Amino acid sequence: MALIVQKFGGTSVGSIERIEQVADKVKKFRESGDDLVVVLSAMSGETNRLIDLAKQICDKPEPRELDVIVSTGEQVTIALLAMALMKRGVPAVSYTGNQVRILTDSAHNKARILQIDDQKIRADLKAGRVVVVAGFQGVDEHGNITTLGRGGSDTTGVALAAALKADECQIYTDVDGVYTTDPRVVPQARRLEKITFEEMLEMASLGSKVLQIRSVEFAGKYNVPLRVLHSFKEGPGTLITIDEEESMEQPIISGIAFNRDEAKLTIRGVPDTPGVAFKILGPISAANIEVDMIVQNVSHDNTTDFTFTVHRNEYEKALSVLENTAREIGAREVSGDTKIAKVSIVGVGMRSHAGVASRMFEALAKESINIQMISTSEIKVSVVIEEKYLELAVRALHTAFELDAPARQGE
Amino acid sequence: MALIVQKFGGTSVGSIERIEQVADKVKKFRESGDDLVVVLSAMSGETNRLIDLAKQICDKPEPRELDVIVSTGEQVTIALLAMALMKRGVPAVSYTGNQVRILTDSAHNKARILQIDDQKIRADLKAGRVVVVAGFQGVDEHGNITTLGRGGSDTTGVALAAALKADECQIYTDVDGVYTTDPRVVPQARRLEKITFEEMLEMASLGSKVLQIRSVEFAGKYNVPLRVLHSFKEGPGTLITIDEEESMEQPIISGIAFNRDEAKLTIRGVPDTPGVAFKILGPISAANIEVDMIVQNVSHDNTTDFTFTVHRNEYEKALSVLENTAREIGAREVSGDTKIAKVSIVGVGMRSHAGVASRMFEALAKESINIQMISTSEIKVSVVIEEKYLELAVRALHTAFELDAPARQGE
Repeated sequence: MALIVQKFGGTSVGSIERIEQVADKVKKFRESGDDLVVVLSAMSGETNRLIDLAKQICDKPEPRELDVIVSTGEQVTIALLAMALMKRGVPAVSYTGNQVRILTDSAHNKARILQIDDQKIRADLKAGRVVVVAGFQGVDEHGNITTLGRGGSDTTGVALAAALKADECQIYTDVDGVYTTDPRVVPQARRLEKITFEEMLEMASLGSKVLQIRSVEFAGKYNVPLRVLHSFKEGPGTLITIDEEESMEQPIISGIAFNRDEAKLTIRGVPDTPGVAFKILGPISAANIEVDMIVQNVSHDNTTDFTFTVHRNEYEKALSVLENTAREIGAREVSGDTKIAKVSIVGVGMRSHAGVASRMFEALAKESINIQMISTSEIKVSVVIEEKYLELAVRALHTAFELDAPARQGE
Repeated sequence: MALIVQKFGGTSVGSIERIEQVADKVKKFRESGDDLVVVLSAMSGETNRLIDLAKQICDKPEPRELDVIVSTGEQVTIALLAMALMKRGVPAVSYTGNQVRILTDSAHNKARILQIDDQKIRADLKAGRVVVVAGFQGVDEHGNITTLGRGGSDTTGVALAAALKADECQIYTDVDGVYTTDPRVVPQARRLEKITFEEMLEMASLGSKVLQIRSVEFAGKYNVPLRVLHSFKEGPGTLITIDEEESMEQPIISGIAFNRDEAKLTIRGVPDTPGVAFKILGPISAANIEVDMIVQNVSHDNTTDFTFTVHRNEYEKALSVLENTAREIGAREVSGDTKIAKVSIVGVGMRSHAGVASRMFEALAKESINIQMISTSEIKVSVVIEEKYLELAVRALHTAFELDAPARQGE
């Protein structure tokens, strides 16, 4: 008899009908004998409705009070599911973050979980109940309601699984697993049976929006086996684990991620003195703009060029900050481009395989795709290219790394 | 500097615009130097919306889970008001029933308050904050969310005022005070400046639906001065107190209450043996039907007649129960009437004045109104009459007891 934590997102509980479907699903699992803790988001749209209410009062709602409002979304769905389970003869009980008690720090709207009290949940599981917990929320040491920020329900699921030493944390979504790349771009894209936490992190942060990054980090840190499944279709999904045993049999790379949300900015002719990177990026970060890739070439004539990417929404803001900086430090010119895309190959296999990057560059060269920026990590190589070549690049790489082999048996 | 508890109902916080108006009002009070605790209901309609959601899952939602859902209504309004106050530069903080901690018993959907922890509220008041508390809800000793049942926000206000030893509990409503009778029936009806708790109880339970009965009982028990005021109009409202000092100057009766919601049932020719009243009313109460007036005449020929009133919605159900009983105990016949109305005169003054009842009967006789049932208490005389005479009876009594004197100065 296993202990499973199951997390259903806003779309899965978006209507009474959907909640009834989730109840059917949970009942079936329960009947197979597993102990179940179910974590829920608010009904899809509800969190936005509540934030809109608050914004009608003021543009920047006071964070503590916003959490009081927003946390009601999950409070409604957990009780509805508990009722739906009881209607089906499945004993169940709902708990808010405060009731569990999911202790967080006091950073309202983006709190971090510090500790989870598992006493109540264990007692309920022992008594044969399915425990339904509100995702996304907790309580600080002073009893203030907190929320973990968007997507926080995944984190709640993983944190509960870690605290309860659950056998698996299942995240139900609107996709049936993690794919080698986006099937809308590459029809031959395959569902992966397994992927490591690190690969998943790189895939997630590069735009494969299946799971929230924080929840994957959390799962990796506490070694909680994570499974991505479809809410309403049957299937084994994709298991995300620490397990590298089979790495010899694994393909060199697991997937190809891409991202069209970025823009790049370049500052040229920067006097190459110590601390220049900070002089350039300090004001960007002070303006609360997040930077993704950073590339600095070797200097020539005692000046250097410096390029970085930001989210496309922040491009105008970043450009104006950078122009200021350029004047102050006496740089030659500032330029930028929003028509770019980032493509990355991800895989723990590349650790032990040389030449993965050059194989990537070769594949792109064959298609005459110019590479504008390159950055690498231990299990990932990312390149920035002109946006219009994105689909072509992804398909070429998918083929070059032998990802579009036919589905294995049983898939 | 006084400590005032203010309670605003669902209509007063029914929209963002209304909440802003309440914030203006609270700000004005705060600027006059009083310490303020504000108790709120959910936005009008919201509690019903939430109950409907639950009923889509099952007709009889599990009470504990229903409370989890329904309590979110006030949780939203308290945070919205706290934000609106802060926007106006008034420091404020919101608390749910659990956060305050308003400890109740575990009778979900109709819990009773056992104890209120005033520590947090006192600390906030001392720090200059307006404290905004969710009405209608609490928490039991196990940490389960409870609700006090419909209208429970008034009770929360009064209980908080008692716990904090507040100088006054102000209940804001859609009327500007308590009237001698319904102004829609008697245009000369006057707003009362003062009324005693007992009178208010009789007025409320007889159909003057200004305040919830439980909150008045509570206020009387803990001697909390209660004031009924209009949410958005200026005016002193009506003060409800224990104060009988001025009773010599008071009129004999304070007001005339009436009620069209009842139906009467009569069982005739009942063998007059000990325990017969229980035999008749036992099954009615077992069927969860509440009985209001009960009249039993002296017996003749060893049989007696027995008449009682129930809510009109329960008439059919009561009739069928009573017909069963009649067969069992061998009564002669059962009859009933839904076209009745109850009219009551209420006043602590009648304690020290003889002949109040006869003056009432005289006034009705003058108008040829037949009296079907009579029942009396220390500060009230109620009669049941044919429904069509209701307005006539109320007007005749309003005049007979000199209630339609012109308004006093300052009113």
